[in-house]
Amino acid sequence: MEIDFKKMQGLAPAVIQDASSGELLMLGFMNREALELSLRTGLVTFYSRTRQSLWTKGETSGNRLRIIAAWTDCDRDTVLMKVSVLGEGKVCHTGSRSCFTSELKLAAAPWAEKIEALS
Amino acid sequence: MEIDFKKMQGLAPAVIQDASSGELLMLGFMNREALELSLRTGLVTFYSRTRQSLWTKGETSGNRLRIIAAWTDCDRDTVLMKVSVLGEGKVCHTGSRSCFTSELKLAAAPWAEKIEALS
Repeated sequence: MEIDFKKMQGLAPAVIQDASSGELLMLGFMNREALELSLRTGLVTFYSRTRQSLWTKGETSGNRLRIIAAWTDCDRDTVLMKVSVLGEGKVCHTGSRSCFTSELKLAAAPWAEKIEALS
Repeated sequence: MEIDFKKMQGLAPAVIQDASSGELLMLGFMNREALELSLRTGLVTFYSRTRQSLWTKGETSGNRLRIIAAWTDCDRDTVLMKVSVLGEGKVCHTGSRSCFTSELKLAAAPWAEKIEALS
């Protein structure tokens, strides 16, 4: 299964999901080398856009991500990896398990107003 | 909460997850306008890189994505939306519920060999 790296100048987004809980942990980017290394070693390796180099997630913190299974999507331009978190399980550098901790404000949807009117 | 659209020339990846099952459904991209429209209407709207225009997911198929909650990550450069799928629930244009249906081959990890040696 060949991944299409052309759409993002050599990169593809890689979504990392906890294999047991289904929780979204983080999103990083992979180039071809990072993807091949990840699939070969079974440990998530990204390509850092800011540092312009490969980095195996958790290489310093110990919170490495063991890949249980990996998929690509219908366009073959995105990767999904279901992982088991090693170490203390704090995937985010802020110390939380997931990087997705800041909730965005959603405007009240029309159906929410209807529900409120009924109560 | 201001999203950092600079890293990807005005875009941010938006991961779409089924709010009830936790299944990863798809990944698209949003520019500022698409994100604001999504949060205001409660329906996922992407920016299509190939068509260079906004598209509300499911506007023709009916499989729209109602946003239950939305988050951004520690770098504020990625969006996660937990959704309820409207219509027939076939999010992918191939007719499946999720776009992530092609499994990538993972090399046998060292621990797999160890487990095999023990059995």
